[in-house]
Formats: sequence, structure tokens, C-alpha cells
Amino acid sequence: MMRDSQATQRRLLDAAAEEFSAYGIAGARVDRIAAAARSNKAQIYHYFGSKDQLFDAVMNEIVAKTASEIPIDVDDLPGFAGRLFDRYEDSPHIARLATWYRLERTLDGAQIEVLADTIEDELERIRKAQVAGTLPARYRPADLLNLVLHLSFLWAFVFPELQGHVRRSSRRHRRQVLTDAVAALLVDDDAVSGD
Amino acid sequence: MMRDSQATQRRLLDAAAEEFSAYGIAGARVDRIAAAARSNKAQIYHYFGSKDQLFDAVMNEIVAKTASEIPIDVDDLPGFAGRLFDRYEDSPHIARLATWYRLERTLDGAQIEVLADTIEDELERIRKAQVAGTLPARYRPADLLNLVLHLSFLWAFVFPELQGHVRRSSRRHRRQVLTDAVAALLVDDDAVSGD
Repeated sequence: MMRDSQATQRRLLDAAAEEFSAYGIAGARVDRIAAAARSNKAQIYHYFGSKDQLFDAVMNEIVAKTASEIPIDVDDLPGFAGRLFDRYEDSPHIARLATWYRLERTLDGAQIEVLADTIEDELERIRKAQVAGTLPARYRPADLLNLVLHLSFLWAFVFPELQGHVRRSSRRHRRQVLTDAVAALLVDDDAVSGD
Repeated sequence: MMRDSQATQRRLLDAAAEEFSAYGIAGARVDRIAAAARSNKAQIYHYFGSKDQLFDAVMNEIVAKTASEIPIDVDDLPGFAGRLFDRYEDSPHIARLATWYRLERTLDGAQIEVLADTIEDELERIRKAQVAGTLPARYRPADLLNLVLHLSFLWAFVFPELQGHVRRSSRRHRRQVLTDAVAALLVDDDAVSGD
């Protein structure tokens, strides 16, 4: 019985990830998710409470998995950004879900607790690396983190009108563009200005 | 009569920009747009054809206006990115519309002609500046353009969980972070390596 319940919840989360990725939160239809998961709307509301809460459950799981599998490496921020890029390439629904989230949930002040904790931890590690002198002190930690996270999405949402011009670029090339960009942000000011 | 028609189309485009910005393409409701514009659904279909075509008309107008008011300046790409940032700050609906567009229209191969033309022109200018030696030749033009356009959106979609940490940053500060980042991408490799 317990096993049935877990299997149903698993199928619902997988079907929900697919539905939300394709249509966003407002556009997602609970009955389509239920049908795809061989379940029904009543079970969704029983297990998750509401469509918004189902979305949050999907995001929570993805963020927790990504954060534990791809921890920040303050000694190698280009590599960290590159690994996030790899994840978005391998699982395109992640970048889409993260974007729907920012478009549709930012205004209501919703927060994903595990993401808030992860960001708090990442900022603290950046701060310590700045004190230790291994990351440039000229950045506010939140600015540097935002730059790195934003650049990891460099190829996730290319305008279709630009896409034709980059279509022949290999994944390896695109990854290099992104990790080089992060590296360029970390170049020592002294080295650049030559003093 | 002509004036009435133009005034109605103007109100429809404005109402549509607001509706699409809030709810996206799938989430937008034509009857809400009609009501907000003191018009009706029949007029929308008469003037624009379909909901998708109405969205395209909104995007076309915004892209054309942005491209003509903020032309690329290959001698000052940080300034160009800064001016795009200013536009997104002053008109937050632009970044939202551009993001819905990429989420909802990328898959069907739709293209906004004026955006395709603008990008073609921008790539050509970058190419020429590379030949002239005023932009680093190490970038493929599309890579550099994507980096600059992507960085101009740096602050448009901060994760809400990170937003709390940057809330006290002034607009001027956030702009500087972004223009500095673009400038860092353009540092001469020779200067960095010191030879």
C-alpha cells in the first residue's frame, strides 16, 4: 500500500515536471498530469494540495538534486558554471522550469526553501574565499553569484533568430564560451591594469 | 473612421502587451485583452488574425522600437548592454515578453523578422570590428553577441531566493556590475597574459 502510494507520487512528479516544463504553471493542466501518471485529480490534491504546491514539489526535488550533485566550487567557478550548463543541456526541462518559476512565481514572494538555503551557503563560501584572497574582493558576493548562475544559462534561451547562427557550434564549444566568460570575470584587476 | 481604427488597434496592442507580459501567450485571454481595450474579440481577430499573431505584433513593435533607439555600438559594447539594461529596467514588460517568447515560441520555429534582421546587422558590425581590430578576434560573432545580449538581462530574472541579497543594490550599482562584466569579456588576451 505504502509502495503503491510512493509509486503514484513518483509518477505524478514525473508527469508534472513534463507538463510544467512544456506549459508553465498557469498553462499546465492538472487533468493532463493525472492522465499521464495514470492517476486522478483527487489524488493530486490529496498528495500535493494544489497545482502551485505540486509545482513547488517538482522544483524542490530538482533543486535539491542539482545542489547536492553540483555543489559550488569557489576554487573553480568556471567549472561550476560548466557543470550547471551540462545539467541544463542533459535535462532541458530544468532551465525551462526555472524560467517559468521566475516568470510566474517571483511576484507573489514564493520561495523554495532548499534554494534559499543553497544560495545562503554559496554566498558564505564566496565571502570566505574573498577573505582568503582566492576570489576577487571587488565583487559583492551576491553580484558574483548572480553573474555565475546567469552565465550558466547562456545557451538555454538563445533567441530563435540568433539560434541559426550558433546551430553548428558544438556543445563543447558553447561550454567553453561560457566557462571562458566566467574566467574573464575573475581575472585579477592588477594583472589587467598592469600594476 | 480611419482614426478610430488606428486608435482601437493602438489600445489593443497596449492591452495585449500588458496581458501577455503578465500571463504569457498560452495564459493570455483574448477576452480580457478585448475588455481592457474597450473592444471585442471579433475586432482582435479582424485586425490581427489570431492570438499568436497579436503576440507577434506586440513583439514586432517592441523589437523595432528597441533596435532603432538602442543600436549596437561595437566601439562600446558595455555601453550598449547598459542601455539595454536601462530599457528593461524602465519597461519591465519587455524582458518578460522576450522570455515568454523564448519559452513558448522557440519550439515552433517562429521568427520575428525585424529581430532576425537586427541580429544579422549586429553580427555584421561585430565581424567588421573584428577585422578592423577593435573587437577581439577570438570570438565567433554570434557567441559575443549572445554574451552581450544575455548579460543585458542579468538583473531581469534574479531568483527570488537571491533577490533578497541584492535588494539594497542601487540601479546604478547593478548597471555597473553588468557593464563591467561585458568589459571584462573584451580585455585583450595579450594584456591579460602580459605579453
